[in-house]
Amino acid sequence: MADKSLLCTDIVVQIGMIVKDVAQTSAKYAAFFGVDIPQIDTITSDPESQSYYHGEPMNAVSKQAFFKIGTAIELELIEPVSGASTWQEHLDTKGEGVHHIAFAVHDMPVKIRDCEDYGMQLIQQGNYVDADVGRYSYVASDDLKIILELLEDY
Amino acid sequence: MADKSLLCTDIVVQIGMIVKDVAQTSAKYAAFFGVDIPQIDTITSDPESQSYYHGEPMNAVSKQAFFKIGTAIELELIEPVSGASTWQEHLDTKGEGVHHIAFAVHDMPVKIRDCEDYGMQLIQQGNYVDADVGRYSYVASDDLKIILELLEDY
Repeated sequence: MADKSLLCTDIVVQIGMIVKDVAQTSAKYAAFFGVDIPQIDTITSDPESQSYYHGEPMNAVSKQAFFKIGTAIELELIEPVSGASTWQEHLDTKGEGVHHIAFAVHDMPVKIRDCEDYGMQLIQQGNYVDADVGRYSYVASDDLKIILELLEDY
Repeated sequence: MADKSLLCTDIVVQIGMIVKDVAQTSAKYAAFFGVDIPQIDTITSDPESQSYYHGEPMNAVSKQAFFKIGTAIELELIEPVSGASTWQEHLDTKGEGVHHIAFAVHDMPVKIRDCEDYGMQLIQQGNYVDADVGRYSYVASDDLKIILELLEDY
């Protein structure tokens, strides 16, 4: 057994959910939480994003909206629009619902290697929309029963 | 739109996950987080628990384990053992994975009514193992794409 967390963090920062219609579901959550409907961003995996899905360059479009819930966590709603991605794969195979739990990390390449050594697979990775701000990776293991997202803010 | 949160809280306290073998998955998470394997509790819906599933008295057994992650959230692993429950229903229809996100609330009956007024359905409810300590309710809406758990600590 590891003598410390593989990720060197146990800070959950986000719960990510796949939805078919982010505008509709955002409005429902806004009503539920009693907050304004958040901005919906259309995300493209352009070359600057250096996005890869199962190791191949990714060419996908998605729409995303974020809710701050409590002081420490955000709820991310993701609508796959086009192209192959872990989001579209989730919608196709499992339908709408929770896709990932995200942890804040540092030293992404090291953390990915540690996760791979543990037996996890790197599913998808890329830069944030503003590539100078940070990058993300999705890793998964049958052992843990869910996709984890690693988020590195620079 | 509501002018405040339906739950009067946005504090996420727990992510609940259904697994087939809680001992095995607990060991994997313990290794991943670098912590001790937690105690596994066998939970029965005895009369004192006043447990109901879809409005009918519940007679189910489950095994549960909890991990504290970060300072504010726990990860709950639930293995349905026998009897009808939302946990077994999730395993049968969706397989292993995230089952609910839990929020801390007060005044459970009022919150359940507010959720029902919003269009949510009360799926399952009961007391904690120690009935003097608190009670839980699962509510769900197709609009929100996930089951929410309300937890009231007395």
